[in-house]
Amino acid sequence: MSNLNMVENLVKERPAWPRDDISLVLLVLDGIGDIRHPDYGMQTPLEKAETPALDALARRSALGRIMPVDYGITPGSGPAHLGLFGYDPREVEIGRGVLEALGLDMDLEFGDLAARCNFCTMEGGVITDRRAGRPATEENVKLCKLLQDRIGGIEDVEVIIQPGMGHRFAVIFRGPDLVEGVCDTDPHENGEPLHEAKALRCEAEKSARIVGEFQKRALEVLEGKPPMNAILVRGVAERPRINSLHERFKLNTAAIATYPMYRGLSKLVGMNIVETGESIEDEFKAYQKTREQFDYHFIHVKGTDEAGEDGDFDHKVDVIREVDANLDMILDREPDVLAITGDHSTPCSMKLHSWHPVPLLLHSNRCDVSGCERFTEHECSGNGTLGTFHSMHLISLMLANAALLDKYGA
Amino acid sequence: MSNLNMVENLVKERPAWPRDDISLVLLVLDGIGDIRHPDYGMQTPLEKAETPALDALARRSALGRIMPVDYGITPGSGPAHLGLFGYDPREVEIGRGVLEALGLDMDLEFGDLAARCNFCTMEGGVITDRRAGRPATEENVKLCKLLQDRIGGIEDVEVIIQPGMGHRFAVIFRGPDLVEGVCDTDPHENGEPLHEAKALRCEAEKSARIVGEFQKRALEVLEGKPPMNAILVRGVAERPRINSLHERFKLNTAAIATYPMYRGLSKLVGMNIVETGESIEDEFKAYQKTREQFDYHFIHVKGTDEAGEDGDFDHKVDVIREVDANLDMILDREPDVLAITGDHSTPCSMKLHSWHPVPLLLHSNRCDVSGCERFTEHECSGNGTLGTFHSMHLISLMLANAALLDKYGA
Repeated sequence: MSNLNMVENLVKERPAWPRDDISLVLLVLDGIGDIRHPDYGMQTPLEKAETPALDALARRSALGRIMPVDYGITPGSGPAHLGLFGYDPREVEIGRGVLEALGLDMDLEFGDLAARCNFCTMEGGVITDRRAGRPATEENVKLCKLLQDRIGGIEDVEVIIQPGMGHRFAVIFRGPDLVEGVCDTDPHENGEPLHEAKALRCEAEKSARIVGEFQKRALEVLEGKPPMNAILVRGVAERPRINSLHERFKLNTAAIATYPMYRGLSKLVGMNIVETGESIEDEFKAYQKTREQFDYHFIHVKGTDEAGEDGDFDHKVDVIREVDANLDMILDREPDVLAITGDHSTPCSMKLHSWHPVPLLLHSNRCDVSGCERFTEHECSGNGTLGTFHSMHLISLMLANAALLDKYGA
Repeated sequence: MSNLNMVENLVKERPAWPRDDISLVLLVLDGIGDIRHPDYGMQTPLEKAETPALDALARRSALGRIMPVDYGITPGSGPAHLGLFGYDPREVEIGRGVLEALGLDMDLEFGDLAARCNFCTMEGGVITDRRAGRPATEENVKLCKLLQDRIGGIEDVEVIIQPGMGHRFAVIFRGPDLVEGVCDTDPHENGEPLHEAKALRCEAEKSARIVGEFQKRALEVLEGKPPMNAILVRGVAERPRINSLHERFKLNTAAIATYPMYRGLSKLVGMNIVETGESIEDEFKAYQKTREQFDYHFIHVKGTDEAGEDGDFDHKVDVIREVDANLDMILDREPDVLAITGDHSTPCSMKLHSWHPVPLLLHSNRCDVSGCERFTEHECSGNGTLGTFHSMHLISLMLANAALLDKYGA
């Protein structure tokens, strides 16, 4: 039995009414982890930032580091968040189409197929520009509306189209008997004709037929509209069939996130979405407002990752300071368990997600106080008492720190 | 999916030509790890040795410790190196016969059977000295030549004999349909008759017949030549069928090692053998000469292990100093990734291989600089940011640090 199955079995029964007042908070500073680099003064943003609130909290908390997937593996946002939510990201896969649809704030139901698509240019039967000259988003919106008007459904399948940025859009196919296993119509290089939407397994024949028909009708609708006169369909995928956090751990969960993709990932594991404004202060306020309604809040801060991807060290420091300045808004509401960490590292010197383990701070009345002075990568690995472990085990520690798990054996 | 399978799937495609200029170096100081012991001034050789070059490098590197096989498991050289090369030593087995043949610099092909053998003394139908009175190696060489002349082949199987030290030699059986699963003819104690070379499974019947015939003919050849008038056959094994580092990770690999066994282990995983002189300086020069020809160099330094096995603390310190004095020869060629570690620990106070995790230094432009002052066992575990992990994951970190792995998921 895996550790996570064991934890599921040990979760205590709790009264439905009157509700107990439990609050677990997972505060994710996206891409927070960084590395010391000579080009950036051999300090990480967490080391550089003045963080009086985090420092004070660190002194009363258990620190450690978490590995999003495994040694040397750099995760995308999907697997990285699944790990934090308590799913083994090596086992649960989120297809590209699903992630694209989530990123465009589309609602996915079980059984839906999602695809990410490009507008492209076709001349003489071959693709000459896979991005259709990178059109303005308004052009994209206009043509998506046209496609949606003309192709509302195929057979007994509903077709839902949502424009993205530039040349990109997403499609959801909703109807009976749709499953994964359709190859891309995208030839993945210019100068090639469209590929056929073939079924990669017998069960996917209907899906392939629908995708192929969508591809064909789109060409008819777009005819004579260069440079956006064709489409490419890629990453056709189902919503993963995973049990929700409520089913697994009896938690009523909520997500506070400003970016659609993170709200979407939360919905995949059954979280409720809490309304929030754009700022960190808005997000923390949303927690305050809904603390009593949910057992578990996932709060997502995007700025740290954006700064890392831009290589903007100073901005990453600023976002950390802003979190620090607002942290009391969470602490004042005395959550039973507060975990502060990231989904992965995004070192400024790399301008990319990376595999480096992410600093973790775990605070509760039952935590193994590490005696660290600060919440930094090096305090977490050097003096942290939690060691370095796989992200997917964080949920077990959070539940244990909330006294929500029974003893194992007598 | 195991982590190593995942890593294999994530290795980036790279152009065959023109080649990119990537250099990963695995510098193995055999048996480097040690323990503090009152008989040796409560310092390890790494702590005692003056190592200005290693100290300077440590300050710019990520440190940690690696566990060759698992908690409390003391590895032989075979499993210990397989781990460093990225194979799970709990799954890949190298038979004794194979290791003996490799140690005698014999070339093993897939499908070969290798056995280690003793000359022994037989009187009245029982073995009276399993080591034939520990003969001089010249006697061994002479009789191996005799055996080889008289027994060139059996049925359609070629027999290749190579003398070792004292009473030991190795045999390779090369021909169709040979597989593992033949029991030893060695009774493993004096006063017993030779055992029959029985097949342990149906598929091994031919192998058993060939080994039995070899045993029989050897007795005929050696008749009347006491004390070396019989042989014992042990550890009959196949070359393990494992995918090469090139097949798994798309790396062109090379080994620089002065001892045949380490060159042999390298050949098992598909490494090319680079010519080298005997000294550490020679070995590092061999790296300099071939840096551009290969993506990955394994450099093996034997002296640290020998000193440990001898319990010669001062000599272990001297070998470490010698590595330190020559280290710039590697650093000057700016490898993209340099890992310095050992295959296992060989504490001077134990005079044996041990299970203690081995210090690891990992240097690259993308490493998580630990801020350690020195490369010692205690800095590696106390202040290292890499933690303690299984050796087999080192390859994942080396590939990640060389930016050779794609992101996992979107």
